[in-house]
Amino acid sequence: MNVITKSSHMYARALELKKRGQSIGLVPTMGALHEGHMSLIRQARKENDVVIVSIFVNPLQFGGGEDFSRYPRPFKKDFSLCSRASVDYVFNPAPSDLYPDGFSTYVEVDNLSSVLCGKSRPGHFRGVATVVNKLCNITCPDIMYVGQKDAQQSVIIRRMAVDLNLPVVIRVMPIIREPDGLAMSSRNEYLNGREREDALVLYNSLMLAKNMVKAGTRDVTRIISAMKKFIRVKKNALIDYVAVVEPDTLVPFKKITGQCLIALAVRIGKTRLIDNIVLTVKKKP
Amino acid sequence: MNVITKSSHMYARALELKKRGQSIGLVPTMGALHEGHMSLIRQARKENDVVIVSIFVNPLQFGGGEDFSRYPRPFKKDFSLCSRASVDYVFNPAPSDLYPDGFSTYVEVDNLSSVLCGKSRPGHFRGVATVVNKLCNITCPDIMYVGQKDAQQSVIIRRMAVDLNLPVVIRVMPIIREPDGLAMSSRNEYLNGREREDALVLYNSLMLAKNMVKAGTRDVTRIISAMKKFIRVKKNALIDYVAVVEPDTLVPFKKITGQCLIALAVRIGKTRLIDNIVLTVKKKP
Repeated sequence: MNVITKSSHMYARALELKKRGQSIGLVPTMGALHEGHMSLIRQARKENDVVIVSIFVNPLQFGGGEDFSRYPRPFKKDFSLCSRASVDYVFNPAPSDLYPDGFSTYVEVDNLSSVLCGKSRPGHFRGVATVVNKLCNITCPDIMYVGQKDAQQSVIIRRMAVDLNLPVVIRVMPIIREPDGLAMSSRNEYLNGREREDALVLYNSLMLAKNMVKAGTRDVTRIISAMKKFIRVKKNALIDYVAVVEPDTLVPFKKITGQCLIALAVRIGKTRLIDNIVLTVKKKP
Repeated sequence: MNVITKSSHMYARALELKKRGQSIGLVPTMGALHEGHMSLIRQARKENDVVIVSIFVNPLQFGGGEDFSRYPRPFKKDFSLCSRASVDYVFNPAPSDLYPDGFSTYVEVDNLSSVLCGKSRPGHFRGVATVVNKLCNITCPDIMYVGQKDAQQSVIIRRMAVDLNLPVVIRVMPIIREPDGLAMSSRNEYLNGREREDALVLYNSLMLAKNMVKAGTRDVTRIISAMKKFIRVKKNALIDYVAVVEPDTLVPFKKITGQCLIALAVRIGKTRLIDNIVLTVKKKP
Protein backbone atom coordinates (compact mmCIF):
# COMPACT_ATOMS: atom_id res chain seq x y z
CA MET A 1 0.00 0.00 0.00
CA ASN A 2 1.22 3.49 -0.89
CA VAL A 3 0.54 6.60 1.17
CA ILE A 4 0.53 9.70 -1.04
CA THR A 5 0.44 13.17 0.47
CA LYS A 6 0.72 15.49 -2.55
CA SER A 7 -2.28 15.99 -4.81
CA SER A 8 0.01 16.42 -7.83
CA HIS A 9 1.54 12.97 -7.17
CA MET A 10 -1.87 11.41 -6.56
CA TYR A 11 -3.22 12.81 -9.84
CA ALA A 12 -0.16 11.69 -11.80
CA ARG A 13 -0.60 8.17 -10.42
CA ALA A 14 -4.35 8.11 -11.05
CA LEU A 15 -3.81 9.28 -14.64
CA GLU A 16 -1.25 6.51 -15.17
CA LEU A 17 -3.70 3.93 -13.83
CA LYS A 18 -6.48 5.23 -16.10
CA LYS A 19 -4.14 5.11 -19.09
CA ARG A 20 -3.45 1.46 -18.30
CA GLY A 21 -7.20 0.86 -18.33
CA GLN A 22 -7.50 0.25 -14.58
CA SER A 23 -10.78 1.08 -12.85
CA ILE A 24 -10.52 3.17 -9.70
CA GLY A 25 -12.75 3.11 -6.63
CA LEU A 26 -12.51 6.05 -4.22
CA VAL A 27 -13.58 6.00 -0.57
CA PRO A 28 -13.39 9.58 0.73
CA THR A 29 -13.04 9.72 4.53
CA MET A 30 -11.92 11.95 7.36
CA GLY A 31 -10.11 8.99 8.93
CA ALA A 32 -10.91 7.54 12.35
CA LEU A 33 -12.04 4.56 10.34
CA HIS A 34 -14.73 2.27 11.71
CA GLU A 35 -16.76 -0.65 10.40
CA GLY A 36 -18.90 1.76 8.35
CA HIS A 37 -15.87 2.94 6.40
CA MET A 38 -14.58 -0.62 6.12
CA SER A 39 -17.82 -1.73 4.47
CA LEU A 40 -17.28 0.94 1.82
CA ILE A 41 -13.68 -0.15 1.33
CA ARG A 42 -14.68 -3.82 0.98
CA GLN A 43 -17.28 -2.90 -1.64
CA ALA A 44 -14.72 -0.77 -3.49
CA ARG A 45 -12.26 -3.69 -3.35
CA LYS A 46 -14.87 -5.98 -4.96
CA GLU A 47 -15.75 -3.63 -7.81
CA ASN A 48 -12.47 -2.00 -8.89
CA ASP A 49 -8.92 -2.77 -10.01
CA VAL A 50 -7.53 -0.08 -7.74
CA VAL A 51 -8.86 1.24 -4.42
CA ILE A 52 -7.96 4.70 -3.16
CA VAL A 53 -8.96 5.79 0.35
CA SER A 54 -8.60 9.49 1.05
CA ILE A 55 -8.03 10.47 4.66
CA PHE A 56 -8.42 14.20 5.16
CA VAL A 57 -10.01 16.08 8.04
CA ASN A 58 -11.47 18.83 5.89
CA PRO A 59 -11.33 22.21 7.67
CA LEU A 60 -13.79 23.67 5.15
CA GLN A 61 -16.68 21.58 6.44
CA PHE A 62 -16.28 22.52 10.11
CA GLY A 63 -17.97 25.62 11.53
CA GLY A 64 -16.48 28.05 14.04
CA GLY A 65 -17.67 26.33 17.21
CA GLU A 66 -17.26 22.80 15.87
CA ASP A 67 -14.84 20.00 16.65
CA PHE A 68 -12.20 20.44 13.91
CA SER A 69 -9.21 20.55 16.23
CA ARG A 70 -10.32 17.70 18.50
CA TYR A 71 -11.63 15.48 15.67
CA PRO A 72 -9.85 12.11 16.10
CA ARG A 73 -6.80 11.58 13.86
CA PRO A 74 -5.51 8.04 14.53
CA PHE A 75 -3.79 8.01 11.14
CA LYS A 76 -1.35 5.18 11.89
CA LYS A 77 -4.17 2.90 12.94
CA ASP A 78 -6.14 4.02 9.85
CA PHE A 79 -3.23 3.22 7.55
CA SER A 80 -2.92 -0.24 9.03
CA LEU A 81 -6.67 -0.88 8.67
CA CYS A 82 -6.43 0.19 5.03
CA SER A 83 -3.40 -1.97 4.43
CA ARG A 84 -5.13 -5.02 5.89
CA ALA A 85 -8.16 -4.32 3.68
CA SER A 86 -5.90 -4.43 0.59
CA VAL A 87 -6.28 -0.74 -0.19
CA ASP A 88 -3.83 0.28 -2.93
CA TYR A 89 -3.40 3.96 -2.12
CA VAL A 90 -4.12 6.13 0.88
CA PHE A 91 -4.30 9.78 -0.14
CA ASN A 92 -3.53 11.82 2.97
CA PRO A 93 -2.87 15.46 1.99
CA ALA A 94 -2.16 18.41 4.27
CA PRO A 95 -4.72 21.22 4.37
CA SER A 96 -2.14 23.49 2.71
CA ASP A 97 -1.96 21.09 -0.22
CA LEU A 98 -5.70 21.15 -0.89
CA TYR A 99 -6.19 24.78 0.12
CA PRO A 100 -3.06 26.72 -0.80
CA ASP A 101 -2.72 30.47 -0.31
CA GLY A 102 -5.22 32.40 -2.39
CA PHE A 103 -7.66 29.49 -2.55
CA SER A 104 -11.09 30.94 -3.29
CA THR A 105 -13.25 28.52 -5.29
CA TYR A 106 -16.24 26.77 -3.75
CA VAL A 107 -18.84 24.33 -5.02
CA GLU A 108 -22.31 25.09 -3.72
CA VAL A 109 -25.38 22.89 -4.03
CA ASP A 110 -28.27 25.29 -3.47
CA ASN A 111 -31.46 24.33 -1.63
CA LEU A 112 -30.29 20.84 -0.60
CA SER A 113 -27.50 22.40 1.49
CA SER A 114 -29.63 24.75 3.58
CA VAL A 115 -32.09 22.26 5.08
CA LEU A 116 -31.74 19.59 7.84
CA CYS A 117 -28.07 19.57 8.99
CA GLY A 118 -27.41 22.62 6.78
CA LYS A 119 -29.61 24.77 9.01
CA SER A 120 -27.42 24.43 12.07
CA ARG A 121 -24.17 23.93 10.13
CA PRO A 122 -23.99 26.83 7.62
CA GLY A 123 -21.17 26.32 5.10
CA HIS A 124 -20.79 22.64 6.04
CA PHE A 125 -22.08 21.20 2.78
CA ARG A 126 -20.23 23.83 0.74
CA GLY A 127 -17.09 22.43 2.36
CA VAL A 128 -18.16 18.87 1.62
CA ALA A 129 -19.10 19.53 -2.02
CA THR A 130 -15.87 21.46 -2.62
CA VAL A 131 -13.55 18.83 -1.20
CA VAL A 132 -15.37 15.94 -2.88
CA ASN A 133 -15.18 17.76 -6.22
CA LYS A 134 -11.43 18.25 -5.71
CA LEU A 135 -10.92 14.62 -4.66
CA CYS A 136 -12.70 13.47 -7.83
CA ASN A 137 -10.43 15.59 -10.01
CA ILE A 138 -7.34 14.37 -8.16
CA THR A 139 -8.11 10.63 -8.00
CA CYS A 140 -10.21 10.11 -11.20
CA PRO A 141 -12.51 7.48 -9.68
CA ASP A 142 -14.96 5.41 -11.71
CA ILE A 143 -17.00 4.80 -8.57
CA MET A 144 -17.07 6.76 -5.33
CA TYR A 145 -18.39 5.11 -2.16
CA VAL A 146 -20.30 7.08 0.46
CA GLY A 147 -22.38 6.03 3.43
CA GLN A 148 -26.13 6.36 3.85
CA LYS A 149 -25.38 7.41 7.46
CA ASP A 150 -24.72 10.88 6.05
CA ALA A 151 -27.92 10.81 4.01
CA GLN A 152 -28.01 14.51 3.18
CA GLN A 153 -24.34 14.48 2.23
CA SER A 154 -24.89 11.60 -0.17
CA VAL A 155 -27.87 13.37 -1.78
CA ILE A 156 -25.76 16.50 -2.23
CA ILE A 157 -22.80 14.61 -3.68
CA ARG A 158 -25.08 12.78 -6.12
CA ARG A 159 -26.69 16.08 -7.16
CA MET A 160 -23.27 17.73 -7.63
CA ALA A 161 -21.96 14.84 -9.72
CA VAL A 162 -24.97 15.04 -12.06
CA ASP A 163 -25.04 18.85 -12.22
CA LEU A 164 -21.32 19.30 -12.90
CA ASN A 165 -21.06 16.28 -15.24
CA LEU A 166 -18.52 14.57 -13.01
CA PRO A 167 -17.74 11.27 -14.71
CA VAL A 168 -18.20 9.19 -11.57
CA VAL A 169 -20.81 6.79 -10.24
CA ILE A 170 -21.81 7.51 -6.63
CA ARG A 171 -22.48 4.29 -4.72
CA VAL A 172 -24.38 4.85 -1.47
CA MET A 173 -23.84 2.00 1.01
CA PRO A 174 -26.11 1.05 3.94
CA ILE A 175 -25.60 2.26 7.50
CA ILE A 176 -23.51 -0.06 9.68
CA ARG A 177 -24.74 -0.25 13.27
CA GLU A 178 -23.42 -1.45 16.61
CA PRO A 179 -25.21 -4.59 17.89
CA ASP A 180 -27.59 -2.41 19.91
CA GLY A 181 -28.49 -0.25 16.90
CA LEU A 182 -26.28 2.84 17.33
CA ALA A 183 -25.08 3.98 13.90
CA MET A 184 -21.30 3.76 13.61
CA SER A 185 -19.62 7.16 13.64
CA SER A 186 -16.16 8.50 14.34
CA ARG A 187 -17.84 10.87 16.79
CA ASN A 188 -19.13 8.00 18.95
CA GLU A 189 -15.76 7.95 20.68
CA TYR A 190 -16.57 11.34 22.23
CA LEU A 191 -19.35 9.69 24.27
CA ASN A 192 -18.85 8.68 27.90
CA GLY A 193 -20.60 5.60 29.34
CA ARG A 194 -23.86 7.31 30.20
CA GLU A 195 -23.94 9.25 26.94
CA ARG A 196 -23.29 6.06 25.00
CA GLU A 197 -26.48 4.62 26.51
CA ASP A 198 -28.47 7.78 25.86
CA ALA A 199 -27.21 7.89 22.25
CA LEU A 200 -29.38 4.85 21.53
CA VAL A 201 -32.33 7.21 21.60
CA LEU A 202 -31.64 8.17 17.97
CA TYR A 203 -32.00 4.64 16.64
CA ASN A 204 -34.85 3.78 18.98
CA SER A 205 -36.84 6.84 17.95
CA LEU A 206 -36.41 5.77 14.31
CA MET A 207 -37.72 2.31 15.25
CA LEU A 208 -40.65 3.97 16.98
CA ALA A 209 -41.42 5.84 13.76
CA LYS A 210 -41.06 2.68 11.72
CA ASN A 211 -43.51 0.86 13.95
CA MET A 212 -46.00 3.72 13.82
CA VAL A 213 -45.89 3.62 10.03
CA LYS A 214 -46.22 -0.16 10.08
CA ALA A 215 -49.29 0.22 12.29
CA GLY A 216 -50.85 2.56 9.74
CA THR A 217 -49.90 6.09 10.83
CA ARG A 218 -49.33 8.34 7.81
CA ASP A 219 -49.51 11.79 9.39
CA VAL A 220 -45.95 13.20 9.58
CA THR A 221 -46.73 15.70 12.35
CA ARG A 222 -47.88 12.85 14.61
CA ILE A 223 -44.80 10.78 13.86
CA ILE A 224 -42.38 13.65 14.48
CA SER A 225 -44.17 14.60 17.72
CA ALA A 226 -43.97 11.05 19.00
CA MET A 227 -40.26 10.83 18.14
CA LYS A 228 -39.48 14.15 19.82
CA LYS A 229 -41.42 13.19 22.94
CA PHE A 230 -39.53 9.90 23.06
CA ILE A 231 -36.15 11.61 22.70
CA ARG A 232 -36.87 14.34 25.26
CA VAL A 233 -37.20 11.73 27.99
CA LYS A 234 -33.38 11.65 27.98
CA LYS A 235 -32.17 14.74 29.80
CA ASN A 236 -28.82 14.57 28.03
CA ALA A 237 -30.47 14.75 24.60
CA LEU A 238 -31.00 18.04 22.77
CA ILE A 239 -32.88 17.74 19.48
CA ASP A 240 -31.48 19.64 16.52
CA TYR A 241 -34.11 18.38 14.07
CA VAL A 242 -36.38 15.45 13.28
CA ALA A 243 -37.60 15.42 9.68
CA VAL A 244 -39.53 13.27 7.24
CA VAL A 245 -38.56 14.17 3.69
CA GLU A 246 -38.48 13.00 0.09
CA PRO A 247 -35.15 11.08 -0.21
CA ASP A 248 -33.79 12.87 -3.33
CA THR A 249 -35.09 16.42 -2.95
CA LEU A 250 -35.23 16.54 0.88
CA VAL A 251 -38.61 18.28 0.58
CA PRO A 252 -40.69 17.70 3.75
CA PHE A 253 -43.62 15.31 3.56
CA LYS A 254 -46.97 16.00 5.22
CA LYS A 255 -48.21 12.47 4.70
CA ILE A 256 -46.05 9.38 4.44
CA THR A 257 -46.28 8.02 0.90
CA GLY A 258 -43.94 6.18 -1.43
CA GLN A 259 -40.34 6.36 -0.26
CA CYS A 260 -39.47 8.64 2.61
CA LEU A 261 -36.33 9.48 4.54
CA ILE A 262 -36.72 9.93 8.27
CA ALA A 263 -33.65 11.78 9.51
CA LEU A 264 -32.63 13.35 12.77
CA ALA A 265 -29.79 15.12 14.52
CA VAL A 266 -29.55 15.06 18.30
CA ARG A 267 -26.91 16.44 20.61
CA ILE A 268 -26.00 13.95 23.33
CA GLY A 269 -24.10 16.07 25.82
CA LYS A 270 -21.64 17.95 23.61
CA THR A 271 -21.66 15.40 20.82
CA ARG A 272 -23.89 15.96 17.80
CA LEU A 273 -25.08 12.66 16.31
CA ILE A 274 -27.16 11.92 13.22
CA ASP A 275 -29.09 8.90 12.03
CA ASN A 276 -31.80 8.01 9.51
CA ILE A 277 -33.90 5.30 7.92
CA VAL A 278 -35.63 5.07 4.57
CA LEU A 279 -39.15 3.66 4.60
CA THR A 280 -41.17 2.54 1.61
CA VAL A 281 -44.94 2.68 1.89
CA LYS A 282 -47.00 1.28 -0.94
CA LYS A 283 -49.65 3.66 -2.20
CA LYS A 284 -53.17 2.33 -1.78
CA PRO A 285 -54.64 1.15 -5.08
CA MET B 1 -16.63 18.23 -38.62
CA ASN B 2 -19.17 16.81 -36.20
CA VAL B 3 -21.81 18.85 -34.40
CA ILE B 4 -22.74 17.22 -31.08
CA THR B 5 -25.68 18.49 -29.06
CA LYS B 6 -25.88 16.04 -26.11
CA SER B 7 -23.36 16.27 -23.29
CA SER B 8 -23.50 12.50 -22.79
CA HIS B 9 -22.47 11.96 -26.44
CA MET B 10 -19.78 14.61 -26.22
CA TYR B 11 -18.30 13.03 -23.09
CA ALA B 12 -18.38 9.53 -24.58
CA ARG B 13 -16.52 10.82 -27.63
CA ALA B 14 -13.98 12.79 -25.57
CA LEU B 15 -13.31 9.73 -23.43
CA GLU B 16 -12.74 7.62 -26.54
CA LEU B 17 -10.28 10.20 -27.89
CA LYS B 18 -8.40 10.31 -24.57
CA LYS B 19 -8.22 6.51 -24.49
CA ARG B 20 -6.64 6.63 -27.94
CA GLY B 21 -4.05 9.03 -26.54
CA GLN B 22 -5.30 12.06 -28.47
CA SER B 23 -4.78 15.52 -27.00
CA ILE B 24 -7.84 17.78 -26.91
CA GLY B 25 -8.02 21.56 -27.18
CA LEU B 26 -11.24 23.26 -26.11
CA VAL B 27 -12.35 26.72 -27.20
CA PRO B 28 -15.44 27.63 -25.13
CA THR B 29 -17.58 30.29 -26.86
CA MET B 30 -21.07 31.74 -26.92
CA GLY B 31 -20.97 31.70 -30.72
CA ALA B 32 -21.21 34.82 -32.93
CA LEU B 33 -17.63 33.99 -33.75
CA HIS B 34 -15.23 36.76 -34.75
CA GLU B 35 -11.54 37.04 -35.43
CA GLY B 36 -10.86 36.91 -31.68
CA HIS B 37 -12.41 33.46 -31.40
CA MET B 38 -10.72 32.37 -34.62
CA SER B 39 -7.32 33.22 -33.17
CA LEU B 40 -8.07 30.88 -30.25
CA ILE B 41 -9.21 28.15 -32.63
CA ARG B 42 -6.09 28.49 -34.77
CA GLN B 43 -3.89 28.20 -31.68
CA ALA B 44 -5.86 25.15 -30.51
CA ARG B 45 -5.45 23.62 -33.97
CA LYS B 46 -1.66 24.08 -33.75
CA GLU B 47 -1.29 22.51 -30.31
CA ASN B 48 -3.73 19.57 -30.19
CA ASP B 49 -4.75 16.42 -32.03
CA VAL B 50 -8.41 17.27 -31.66
CA VAL B 51 -10.13 20.67 -31.46
CA ILE B 52 -13.52 21.08 -29.81
CA VAL B 53 -15.36 24.41 -30.02
CA SER B 54 -18.31 24.75 -27.68
CA ILE B 55 -21.05 27.14 -28.76
CA PHE B 56 -23.49 27.82 -25.96
CA VAL B 57 -25.20 31.07 -25.01
CA ASN B 58 -25.09 30.42 -21.28
CA PRO B 59 -28.24 31.72 -19.56
CA LEU B 60 -26.53 31.43 -16.16
CA GLN B 61 -24.13 34.27 -16.90
CA PHE B 62 -26.75 36.80 -17.95
CA GLY B 63 -28.48 39.01 -15.39
CA GLY B 64 -32.15 39.99 -15.37
CA GLY B 65 -31.89 43.16 -17.46
CA GLU B 66 -29.20 41.84 -19.75
CA ASP B 67 -29.14 40.80 -23.41
CA PHE B 68 -29.62 37.01 -23.17
CA SER B 69 -32.57 36.81 -25.55
CA ARG B 70 -31.18 39.21 -28.16
CA TYR B 71 -27.60 37.91 -27.96
CA PRO B 72 -26.65 37.02 -31.58
CA ARG B 73 -26.98 33.33 -32.51
CA PRO B 74 -25.74 32.96 -36.11
CA PHE B 75 -25.07 29.27 -35.51
CA LYS B 76 -25.00 28.21 -39.19
CA LYS B 77 -22.38 30.81 -39.98
CA ASP B 78 -20.47 29.77 -36.83
CA PHE B 79 -20.53 26.11 -37.87
CA SER B 80 -19.17 26.99 -41.27
CA LEU B 81 -16.40 29.15 -39.76
CA CYS B 82 -15.45 26.23 -37.50
CA SER B 83 -15.51 23.78 -40.37
CA ARG B 84 -13.23 25.98 -42.48
CA ALA B 85 -10.86 26.29 -39.49
CA SER B 86 -10.59 22.46 -39.35
CA VAL B 87 -12.39 22.17 -36.03
CA ASP B 88 -13.15 18.51 -35.27
CA TYR B 89 -16.19 18.88 -33.03
CA VAL B 90 -18.66 21.67 -32.34
CA PHE B 91 -20.42 21.06 -29.04
CA ASN B 92 -23.72 22.94 -29.20
CA PRO B 93 -25.99 21.81 -26.35
CA ALA B 94 -29.44 23.12 -25.44
CA PRO B 95 -29.83 24.91 -22.10
CA SER B 96 -32.02 22.01 -20.93
CA ASP B 97 -29.12 19.62 -21.58
CA LEU B 98 -26.64 21.54 -19.42
CA TYR B 99 -29.22 22.69 -16.85
CA PRO B 100 -31.85 19.96 -16.50
CA ASP B 101 -34.75 20.17 -14.03
CA GLY B 102 -33.53 20.26 -10.46
CA PHE B 103 -30.13 21.66 -11.40
CA SER B 104 -28.73 23.37 -8.31
CA THR B 105 -24.93 23.22 -8.23
CA TYR B 106 -22.78 26.30 -8.76
CA VAL B 107 -19.07 27.01 -8.80
CA GLU B 108 -18.17 30.26 -7.10
CA VAL B 109 -14.81 32.01 -7.13
CA ASP B 110 -14.98 34.35 -4.14
CA ASN B 111 -13.39 37.81 -4.10
CA LEU B 112 -12.29 37.76 -7.76
CA SER B 113 -15.95 37.57 -8.86
CA SER B 114 -17.25 40.57 -6.93
CA VAL B 115 -14.94 43.28 -8.27
CA LEU B 116 -14.74 45.10 -11.65
CA CYS B 117 -17.42 43.60 -13.95
CA GLY B 118 -18.74 41.54 -11.02
CA LYS B 119 -19.92 44.69 -9.26
CA SER B 120 -22.46 45.57 -11.92
CA ARG B 121 -23.09 41.97 -13.02
CA PRO B 122 -23.85 39.98 -9.84
CA GLY B 123 -23.94 36.25 -10.54
CA HIS B 124 -22.22 36.66 -13.90
CA PHE B 125 -18.94 35.01 -12.97
CA ARG B 126 -20.73 32.29 -11.00
CA GLY B 127 -22.45 31.46 -14.29
CA VAL B 128 -19.13 31.54 -16.15
CA ALA B 129 -17.26 29.39 -13.61
CA THR B 130 -20.09 26.87 -13.46
CA VAL B 131 -20.43 26.40 -17.21
CA VAL B 132 -16.67 26.26 -17.78
CA ASN B 133 -16.33 23.63 -15.06
CA LYS B 134 -19.08 21.57 -16.73
CA LEU B 135 -17.53 22.00 -20.18
CA CYS B 136 -14.20 20.74 -18.82
CA ASN B 137 -15.83 17.64 -17.38
CA ILE B 138 -17.74 17.00 -20.62
CA THR B 139 -14.93 17.59 -23.14
CA CYS B 140 -11.82 16.51 -21.13
CA PRO B 141 -9.50 19.13 -22.64
CA ASP B 142 -5.74 19.15 -22.16
CA ILE B 143 -5.69 22.86 -22.98
CA MET B 144 -8.51 25.39 -22.85
CA TYR B 145 -8.21 28.62 -24.82
CA VAL B 146 -9.66 31.89 -23.55
CA GLY B 147 -9.22 35.49 -24.62
CA GLN B 148 -7.44 38.25 -22.72
CA LYS B 149 -10.32 40.53 -23.85
CA ASP B 150 -12.28 39.06 -20.91
CA ALA B 151 -9.38 39.60 -18.52
CA GLN B 152 -11.32 39.08 -15.31
CA GLN B 153 -12.98 35.96 -16.70
CA SER B 154 -9.62 34.46 -17.60
CA VAL B 155 -8.24 35.20 -14.12
CA ILE B 156 -11.30 33.54 -12.56
CA ILE B 157 -11.08 30.48 -14.82
CA ARG B 158 -7.37 30.07 -14.04
CA ARG B 159 -8.08 30.39 -10.31
CA MET B 160 -10.90 27.82 -10.52
CA ALA B 161 -8.77 25.35 -12.46
CA VAL B 162 -6.03 25.53 -9.81
CA ASP B 163 -8.38 25.52 -6.82
CA LEU B 164 -10.50 22.57 -8.00
CA ASN B 165 -7.54 20.59 -9.41
CA LEU B 166 -9.00 20.61 -12.90
CA PRO B 167 -6.48 18.76 -15.06
CA VAL B 168 -6.38 21.42 -17.78
CA VAL B 169 -3.95 24.11 -18.90
CA ILE B 170 -5.61 27.50 -19.41
CA ARG B 171 -4.06 29.33 -22.37
CA VAL B 172 -4.90 33.06 -22.42
CA MET B 173 -4.57 34.55 -25.92
CA PRO B 174 -4.05 38.23 -26.80
CA ILE B 175 -6.87 40.62 -27.65
CA ILE B 176 -7.62 40.89 -31.37
CA ARG B 177 -8.54 44.40 -32.47
CA GLU B 178 -10.15 46.06 -35.46
CA PRO B 179 -7.68 48.15 -37.54
CA ASP B 180 -8.71 51.28 -35.60
CA GLY B 181 -8.13 49.61 -32.21
CA LEU B 182 -11.63 48.53 -31.13
CA ALA B 183 -11.39 45.17 -29.36
CA MET B 184 -13.30 42.49 -31.26
CA SER B 185 -16.52 41.47 -29.50
CA SER B 186 -19.76 39.77 -30.48
CA ARG B 187 -21.52 42.74 -28.91
CA ASN B 188 -19.94 45.18 -31.39
CA GLU B 189 -22.71 44.30 -33.82
CA TYR B 190 -25.20 46.04 -31.54
CA LEU B 191 -23.50 49.39 -32.32
CA ASN B 192 -24.92 51.80 -34.90
CA GLY B 193 -22.58 53.98 -37.01
CA ARG B 194 -22.23 56.78 -34.50
CA GLU B 195 -21.85 54.41 -31.56
CA ARG B 196 -19.20 52.46 -33.46
CA GLU B 197 -17.15 55.67 -33.65
CA ASP B 198 -17.74 56.52 -30.00
CA ALA B 199 -16.77 52.96 -28.97
CA LEU B 200 -13.17 53.78 -29.91
CA VAL B 201 -13.03 55.80 -26.70
CA LEU B 202 -12.28 52.58 -24.74
CA TYR B 203 -9.13 51.77 -26.68
CA ASN B 204 -8.05 55.37 -26.96
CA SER B 205 -8.37 55.92 -23.20
CA LEU B 206 -6.15 52.87 -22.66
CA MET B 207 -3.59 54.39 -25.07
CA LEU B 208 -3.81 57.64 -23.12
CA ALA B 209 -3.01 55.72 -19.92
CA LYS B 210 -0.18 53.87 -21.63
CA ASN B 211 1.35 57.15 -22.78
CA MET B 212 1.01 58.70 -19.33
CA VAL B 213 2.86 55.75 -17.83
CA LYS B 214 5.48 55.94 -20.57
CA ALA B 215 5.95 59.64 -19.73
CA GLY B 216 6.58 58.72 -16.10
CA THR B 217 3.20 58.99 -14.35
CA ARG B 218 2.86 56.37 -11.62
CA ASP B 219 -0.04 57.73 -9.60
CA VAL B 220 -3.11 55.57 -10.34
CA THR B 221 -5.65 58.23 -9.27
CA ARG B 222 -4.23 60.64 -11.83
CA ILE B 223 -4.31 58.05 -14.59
CA ILE B 224 -7.88 56.98 -13.85
CA SER B 225 -9.04 60.63 -13.65
CA ALA B 226 -7.47 61.42 -17.00
CA MET B 227 -9.07 58.33 -18.60
CA LYS B 228 -12.50 59.16 -17.17
CA LYS B 229 -12.27 62.79 -18.31
CA PHE B 230 -11.28 61.60 -21.78
CA ILE B 231 -14.19 59.14 -21.97
CA ARG B 232 -16.80 61.59 -20.67
CA VAL B 233 -16.25 63.86 -23.68
CA LYS B 234 -18.40 61.35 -25.60
CA LYS B 235 -22.01 62.02 -24.63
CA ASN B 236 -22.99 58.48 -25.60
CA ALA B 237 -20.46 56.96 -23.19
CA LEU B 238 -21.41 55.96 -19.63
CA ILE B 239 -18.53 54.68 -17.52
CA ASP B 240 -19.13 51.52 -15.47
CA TYR B 241 -15.60 51.35 -14.11
CA VAL B 242 -11.99 52.20 -14.88
CA ALA B 243 -9.50 50.27 -12.75
CA VAL B 244 -5.78 49.64 -12.39
CA VAL B 245 -5.20 46.31 -10.64
CA GLU B 246 -2.75 43.50 -10.02
CA PRO B 247 -3.29 41.09 -12.96
CA ASP B 248 -3.73 37.86 -10.92
CA THR B 249 -5.46 39.03 -7.77
CA LEU B 250 -7.34 42.04 -9.26
CA VAL B 251 -6.34 44.03 -6.16
CA PRO B 252 -6.28 47.79 -6.97
CA PHE B 253 -2.93 49.52 -7.28
CA LYS B 254 -2.21 52.96 -5.85
CA LYS B 255 1.06 53.32 -7.68
CA ILE B 256 1.94 51.67 -10.97
CA THR B 257 4.68 49.12 -10.38
CA GLY B 258 5.61 45.78 -11.88
CA GLN B 259 2.84 44.35 -14.02
CA CYS B 260 -0.55 46.01 -13.94
CA LEU B 261 -3.87 45.44 -15.66
CA ILE B 262 -5.75 48.55 -16.75
CA ALA B 263 -9.34 47.52 -17.37
CA LEU B 264 -12.55 49.36 -18.09
CA ALA B 265 -16.21 48.85 -18.88
CA VAL B 266 -18.16 51.57 -20.68
CA ARG B 267 -21.71 51.62 -21.91
CA ILE B 268 -21.95 53.05 -25.43
CA GLY B 269 -25.65 53.76 -25.84
CA LYS B 270 -27.23 50.51 -24.66
CA THR B 271 -24.18 48.35 -25.35
CA ARG B 272 -21.78 47.52 -22.53
CA LEU B 273 -18.21 47.10 -23.81
CA ILE B 274 -15.03 46.11 -22.03
CA ASP B 275 -11.35 46.42 -22.87
CA ASN B 276 -7.97 46.27 -21.14
CA ILE B 277 -4.21 46.39 -21.47
CA VAL B 278 -1.42 44.94 -19.37
CA LEU B 279 1.55 47.25 -18.74
CA THR B 280 4.91 46.26 -17.32
CA VAL B 281 6.88 48.92 -15.50
CA LYS B 282 10.36 48.08 -14.33
CA LYS B 283 11.00 48.92 -10.72
CA LYS B 284 13.70 51.53 -10.25
CA PRO B 285 16.96 49.99 -9.04
